[in-house]
Amino acid sequence: MALDKIIRIHSPATVANMVCGFDILGFAVNEPYDEMRIRFTDSPGISIVNEDDYQLPTQPEKNVAGAALLALMEELDAPIGFELSICKQIKPGSGVGSSAASAAGAVVAANRLLQDRFSKEDLVRFAMNGEKLASGVKHADNIAPCIYGGVTLIRSIFPLDIIALTAPPLYVTIVHPQIEVRTSDARGILKQQVLLKDAIRQWGNIAGLVAGLLQSDYELIGRSLEDVLIEPVRSILIPGFDKVKKFSKEAGALGGGISGSGPSIFMLSENETTAREVEKQMKEVYESLSLAYHTYVTTINQSGVTFVEE
Amino acid sequence: MALDKIIRIHSPATVANMVCGFDILGFAVNEPYDEMRIRFTDSPGISIVNEDDYQLPTQPEKNVAGAALLALMEELDAPIGFELSICKQIKPGSGVGSSAASAAGAVVAANRLLQDRFSKEDLVRFAMNGEKLASGVKHADNIAPCIYGGVTLIRSIFPLDIIALTAPPLYVTIVHPQIEVRTSDARGILKQQVLLKDAIRQWGNIAGLVAGLLQSDYELIGRSLEDVLIEPVRSILIPGFDKVKKFSKEAGALGGGISGSGPSIFMLSENETTAREVEKQMKEVYESLSLAYHTYVTTINQSGVTFVEE
Repeated sequence: MALDKIIRIHSPATVANMVCGFDILGFAVNEPYDEMRIRFTDSPGISIVNEDDYQLPTQPEKNVAGAALLALMEELDAPIGFELSICKQIKPGSGVGSSAASAAGAVVAANRLLQDRFSKEDLVRFAMNGEKLASGVKHADNIAPCIYGGVTLIRSIFPLDIIALTAPPLYVTIVHPQIEVRTSDARGILKQQVLLKDAIRQWGNIAGLVAGLLQSDYELIGRSLEDVLIEPVRSILIPGFDKVKKFSKEAGALGGGISGSGPSIFMLSENETTAREVEKQMKEVYESLSLAYHTYVTTINQSGVTFVEE
Repeated sequence: MALDKIIRIHSPATVANMVCGFDILGFAVNEPYDEMRIRFTDSPGISIVNEDDYQLPTQPEKNVAGAALLALMEELDAPIGFELSICKQIKPGSGVGSSAASAAGAVVAANRLLQDRFSKEDLVRFAMNGEKLASGVKHADNIAPCIYGGVTLIRSIFPLDIIALTAPPLYVTIVHPQIEVRTSDARGILKQQVLLKDAIRQWGNIAGLVAGLLQSDYELIGRSLEDVLIEPVRSILIPGFDKVKKFSKEAGALGGGISGSGPSIFMLSENETTAREVEKQMKEVYESLSLAYHTYVTTINQSGVTFVEE
């Protein structure tokens, strides 16, 4: 056990749901990302050091990265100690997988210290404990793309079945209006029952989106980015949503919608020029609403959590 | 207008729904198929000649092939007459797209006489009028694969959006227990509302199935052939269903389920040996139930309705 070894990683933001793929689809982006460092300590347990201003809890069982590490340590046979330093750049509560980045980053980094003893699927399993802590639900649609990179399909949670989907180059524009939407609230307002005819429309779109990604058919991707079930309910929590969507599409975006449970909104475009024009439209909407916001123009991150050389 | 020209076609059976893809997925098979002939007549209108023993109505507006032809003729600007001869080999009510074969075959054949004036999508639109007559609902999950061949996704009915999905070689075993399940009854017993969590599981499977087909991943196809919404309700109408499914999978089938609205059951296999073993299991189930049945071992039909040389 090399006590002097330090692993540094970047853990990317992720967009879950991907409009019609509620709870089953997600993708990683190249910006923003959290920076983390991990090393062994000579006493067992987890010590968390926050290097940002978010004042997240440092008790392991109350911290999403800590909860994920605890799950990993439970499957280790030896008592072991980690010191984890976190510098978050993905704002908690923004809807682009801030908790997933912490949880996934922590276990990917720890696993490298442990000489890659666990599989990616194991790491997803551990990191889901962080999501459970953050939102009350073990979901993997941020965790999986954060660890695998690219677009991932979570066909099933129990048993866990993750499928990496190849996708053509896509530009992603994200706007984060600075309002708070709690994941638990966003889940709470969903209807537990849906009309079969709406569900059929939704799974037609999901099938179309998967086919569009795998066949590099941008038009099909665009036509399939329609959500008749979740978006009509959740979008009312996000001021400016309808305008952002309308103006983004008029500017040439293929389509998009709520990122995760919001409040961030993402739009996909075929090229950077369009993605920047979409950003401009988003800015205008939130300027006109006098609401603080932050935007990103980025691309799909194909590798997930990455290791950073000293 | 060549009055002496005769077009002969084979119109294939089709399997709609494909387990988890209720109302959106379907595929064509190489056996059984209907035989049809069409020619112009010198007086306008539609004349239908039955060359089989099913005693289906010959008034065009009461015959599914006639209803499809009527829709086609409505979009023609000239008064025109067709004589359509039908020798059905796909038993009506069997659940393998008998009405779709009649409706699709009629318009594909007529279109050839009309020098392919209409697109495939137009033909699907016309043929859906036959389905409306047969089941009360305009659905395309038999019509589309019958006309396009292969596996088709109907992302949306209004507007019509059909996507051909490439698939790896698959063997299909079908058993048709000789009981009657009316499509309208099979639709009637479905719940109009479903639990969101069940719908999520269903669309995870649909996404997995589409990915499995496009990535030629047989194991993923097998894992995704699960229907938590429709099969549990409809399968109670089909004696022997659970046994057929269990024994087929034990014999090596990837998976399968109700074909369309039943009573036929289909199973997919990776090779012919398994498909024949599955057939044996199906036969044993219905022998033990003393129920008449018919089986087919076939493959996916890649071309849809085919023209037969004189």
